[in-house]
Amino acid sequence: MKISLKKKILDKNEECALQNKAFFADNNTFCVNVISSPGSGKTTILSRTVGDLKDRLRIGVVEGDIRTDTDAKKIRSAGAAAVQIETKGTCHLSAEQVTGALGAIGAADLDIVFIENVGNLVCPSAFDLGEQARTVVLSLPEGDDKPIKYPGTFAKADVLLINKMDLVDFVDFDLDRVINHVRTLKPDIQIFQVSAKTGEGLQAWYDWLTKKADAKQPKDD
Amino acid sequence: MKISLKKKILDKNEECALQNKAFFADNNTFCVNVISSPGSGKTTILSRTVGDLKDRLRIGVVEGDIRTDTDAKKIRSAGAAAVQIETKGTCHLSAEQVTGALGAIGAADLDIVFIENVGNLVCPSAFDLGEQARTVVLSLPEGDDKPIKYPGTFAKADVLLINKMDLVDFVDFDLDRVINHVRTLKPDIQIFQVSAKTGEGLQAWYDWLTKKADAKQPKDD
Repeated sequence: MKISLKKKILDKNEECALQNKAFFADNNTFCVNVISSPGSGKTTILSRTVGDLKDRLRIGVVEGDIRTDTDAKKIRSAGAAAVQIETKGTCHLSAEQVTGALGAIGAADLDIVFIENVGNLVCPSAFDLGEQARTVVLSLPEGDDKPIKYPGTFAKADVLLINKMDLVDFVDFDLDRVINHVRTLKPDIQIFQVSAKTGEGLQAWYDWLTKKADAKQPKDD
Repeated sequence: MKISLKKKILDKNEECALQNKAFFADNNTFCVNVISSPGSGKTTILSRTVGDLKDRLRIGVVEGDIRTDTDAKKIRSAGAAAVQIETKGTCHLSAEQVTGALGAIGAADLDIVFIENVGNLVCPSAFDLGEQARTVVLSLPEGDDKPIKYPGTFAKADVLLINKMDLVDFVDFDLDRVINHVRTLKPDIQIFQVSAKTGEGLQAWYDWLTKKADAKQPKDD
């Protein structure tokens, strides 16, 4: 019974994920699902990304949190449309929740939609939201053993942002260990070392995003 | 169906939790369930606690991780019995898993059993493991908004360890904001500001633990 119910929930999610995927394809919108532990800096990265790219790309953000809408407010302050989903205890976003949010941010007219998932390095990775790329954020203070301990999450990522590089002199973190291990889990992963606080390294992330968004068909404004 | 299955899983867990609770009471063992995000420093805190208290108290640790037994090895190096539970993808420990581990660390003869839960600030808080106290670890780099975003986890904690105080000059973290908010969620919570790296503040945590362990009936050696 346990297995069949789990299958049922995942089947329902998969159905909505396919619907989202079709929506993004039809509207030439590039969608990135952003996953990390609590406090790795997802919102700061996205706020800065919005601020730095908003004159070049039309961006919207779907925010997932157990409680509060503070992250959506931060994104709006940075200059993008944002909608907050409060999961009220659930540890991940579902594709169905994302479907409901796309209208609210006018996703059909956007170049990029970010989905900031609930802060959790385990559960969100099991739920396809219909995104075209998945970005995992790992911050230096979390430690260099995380890819070994949470292999499933890193193995499904297209991009790894190693954040809080500004703390490199104050915490023990073996960058080579992380990079080598992540590449054994996902050989073609893109890895960018960044600091959302200082801006260090973000240009490479912006270049990757812009290239992906530009690869979509041009839209009428 | 979804609700009834969830109830069934929680009922099964509750049954095993009661069994563990009785075991700890019968054996005068103080059991602490330690919960946090990945990388907040649980293992470092426990390793240091073992090293500093092992001449005074008999300590064992049940380690929960998605993958790897590196944490159990660290605890053994520090001088305590440890058993690793690899959950293979599941985002929290269950009471049943803990029951199975108690024999392996000889818990009946111990003064304190720590359960280091899977790194996850959401799911573990819903599962009673039969512990007598719950400790949540929050590290400075995770940010001062975590109690607001994850209220359920903090509301069920008996102790909050604010870790990585050695980084206080390098990250933005409003200590008063956290302490005030956590106290609204759980007025009688014990809060200790510590650095597992430097040892700062750990004595108050040790005093709390020792007092709790001493409150149990004395054992025959």
